[in-house]
Amino acid sequence: MVYLTRKAEFAASHYYNNPKFSAEENQRIFGKCNNPHGHGHNYTLEVTVKGKVNPQTGFVVDLKDLKETMNREVLDAMDHRFLNKEVPEFFDRIPTTENLAIVIWQRLEPKLKAAQLHRVRVYETPDLFADFYGEA
Amino acid sequence: MVYLTRKAEFAASHYYNNPKFSAEENQRIFGKCNNPHGHGHNYTLEVTVKGKVNPQTGFVVDLKDLKETMNREVLDAMDHRFLNKEVPEFFDRIPTTENLAIVIWQRLEPKLKAAQLHRVRVYETPDLFADFYGEA
Amino acid sequence: MVYLTRKAEFAASHYYNNPKFSAEENQRIFGKCNNPHGHGHNYTLEVTVKGKVNPQTGFVVDLKDLKETMNREVLDAMDHRFLNKEVPEFFDRIPTTENLAIVIWQRLEPKLKAAQLHRVRVYETPDLFADFYGEA
Amino acid sequence: MVYLTRKAEFAASHYYNNPKFSAEENQRIFGKCNNPHGHGHNYTLEVTVKGKVNPQTGFVVDLKDLKETMNREVLDAMDHRFLNKEVPEFFDRIPTTENLAIVIWQRLEPKLKAAQLHRVRVYETPDLFADFYGEA
Amino acid sequence: MVYLTRKAEFAASHYYNNPKFSAEENQRIFGKCNNPHGHGHNYTLEVTVKGKVNPQTGFVVDLKDLKETMNREVLDAMDHRFLNKEVPEFFDRIPTTENLAIVIWQRLEPKLKAAQLHRVRVYETPDLFADFYGEA
Amino acid sequence: MVYLTRKAEFAASHYYNNPKFSAEENQRIFGKCNNPHGHGHNYTLEVTVKGKVNPQTGFVVDLKDLKETMNREVLDAMDHRFLNKEVPEFFDRIPTTENLAIVIWQRLEPKLKAAQLHRVRVYETPDLFADFYGEA
Repeated sequence: MVYLTRKAEFAASHYYNNPKFSAEENQRIFGKCNNPHGHGHNYTLEVTVKGKVNPQTGFVVDLKDLKETMNREVLDAMDHRFLNKEVPEFFDRIPTTENLAIVIWQRLEPKLKAAQLHRVRVYETPDLFADFYGEA
Repeated sequence: MVYLTRKAEFAASHYYNNPKFSAEENQRIFGKCNNPHGHGHNYTLEVTVKGKVNPQTGFVVDLKDLKETMNREVLDAMDHRFLNKEVPEFFDRIPTTENLAIVIWQRLEPKLKAAQLHRVRVYETPDLFADFYGEA
Repeated sequence: MVYLTRKAEFAASHYYNNPKFSAEENQRIFGKCNNPHGHGHNYTLEVTVKGKVNPQTGFVVDLKDLKETMNREVLDAMDHRFLNKEVPEFFDRIPTTENLAIVIWQRLEPKLKAAQLHRVRVYETPDLFADFYGEA
Repeated sequence: MVYLTRKAEFAASHYYNNPKFSAEENQRIFGKCNNPHGHGHNYTLEVTVKGKVNPQTGFVVDLKDLKETMNREVLDAMDHRFLNKEVPEFFDRIPTTENLAIVIWQRLEPKLKAAQLHRVRVYETPDLFADFYGEA
Repeated sequence: MVYLTRKAEFAASHYYNNPKFSAEENQRIFGKCNNPHGHGHNYTLEVTVKGKVNPQTGFVVDLKDLKETMNREVLDAMDHRFLNKEVPEFFDRIPTTENLAIVIWQRLEPKLKAAQLHRVRVYETPDLFADFYGEA
Repeated sequence: MVYLTRKAEFAASHYYNNPKFSAEENQRIFGKCNNPHGHGHNYTLEVTVKGKVNPQTGFVVDLKDLKETMNREVLDAMDHRFLNKEVPEFFDRIPTTENLAIVIWQRLEPKLKAAQLHRVRVYETPDLFADFYGEA
């Protein structure tokens, strides 16, 4: 059983706002992140899959397939996008690092064949990241 | 003569568009960066000053002063902002990495006392950066 | 269940010495780290908390609270300090990377509300780090 | 119980080829990695051991011993080598990142005293790494 | 006048040998790098161009063009290659970091339009790099 | 003419104090760095030499020689040391990043043969560094 991790980067913008909160509450809770114009990040995504090593190839997973799946399911939808306005999952969910990790898991998990998704890690900045393992 | 460099980070969003170009030209020239919703980056700013080392302090520049100037002139204006809409210099100038380096130079240069501004470097991503030395 | 990690840096000095060992043993076991004047590091601290994502905020933990707790319980006490002489836990315990991870856990764990402490990671250099999960 | 991780780097070359596959299959499956002249990487190895902290030293493991074992069992054999031709385990096994993690585990695990091997992580590039925990 | 730098990575193998030296001399001068099987690196290439900022685009250089030129002239030839055997300039020149910087300059300089090549930097490892500015 | 740079790390402690200043002035000017117990950093040193490439070896400088000179003149004296108390140049000079760059230049410059010293860069943290080119 080996765990293989591939990183990718995407540049996106977002802001934090809960329409059920008053303007004052949104400002107090979200601070600078509440600016409705949005601001952005170079996100780093780490996708970890686990599985047996195929003795014919030495691979847990075909990296070309993994890359293609990550591009199609995640990067094409999120890179150079305003997450709140252009990614449907965030039309009514706040695009925090935590929620990004969950949404990316939900997009990737059903599409990965061959290997099993183990962890999605999302870095918002080099100093802040969230991990999701599919645990309820 | 010693050159001292301090780094800082800011998160901002931007997009590229020239109103004199047609929609097709803007799309062809700027590609994904033309998305009007904006997208974002964790920018890294490196400010280099040069000067003699003060023998009383061992400093070329008081770092607290340099930090304060960088915060007041640059970070307070650009961090967690949509550059095109919230930073006046970009109301009619495209916020490329090149132009960011020039604008940040113009903001910092008149405010630095004690030491002389030598270089402004702006990283848009770890793989792309622009340097400006104040040369015409 | 999402795991959120925040990094912070602190600069401190330390040395390794066990008063029960002879000078020769201390030198043999601890090598250059036995120098009583101390030497130092830019430590990187990673604090990981786990919890459910609050659907109102998208947060596992309020980052302002986490930052404040890390500053108050750890950084104010350790940053720009000589660990052996200025941090009480190290008056009679050797400030190795391992012990730093344990001491930081013990300082943070009782103070974190809302979310549960999952892991404390301490890097002494980019090439050496210790992880503590609170396991006996 | 503390987990201690030490990193090391080595520069090696390799290529991917399965003699049971046709030339076309090797090319299709392995792409540019199938070039028989080889190509290379700066590999980063992370070795994690776990154990109780020795109260006399503050160490889970004597770092000099760990370093020596890593050098003798892994780096002396793999650094500045063509893995396929100079490391026996890869005479008939494809030197993928996955297999490197397994082979390094097998070399280190029997030689570590004092502490227990917990994980071997191998980075082929900063964007791709494999973890092995000794799990069948 | 702004200086714009773009990074790219390539994985290659090489070895150092001067056929005019005896085997003993080659071993003494080049050490582990003399191994004829080759060993490899993840090279990082930084290409810096300088020019005026085009007021219509905010660009010193069209990044798509720069990327294409770097791919066609350098990466297609060197990535996943054994430099001594597959890159003609190194058939009779030792592929040191210094010579790589010169060869890459010579490949890029005649092909860059719009902007002027200012510097080629090549990292062999994160701790060793060579810069060439086209100076005789 | 090629510029070759080699990095090295050292761990040291220091503090800032000018005996001609009052305690209040030292505290006001140097802040946390005035703590007489000292605090420490993982310093990164970059030494750049320039010269013609030797056509026999492809080298600007023999890296083994450069490494040996850096170890003997700088790292043996500064690594795992309290700079103020154990490095003579800092007995009466404040060990700021600026002064470290100058002192390291003065130690290396007379000892480098073959190639010419071009720049000494010292990082105190990843976000602060000083460059010295030997300019009066």
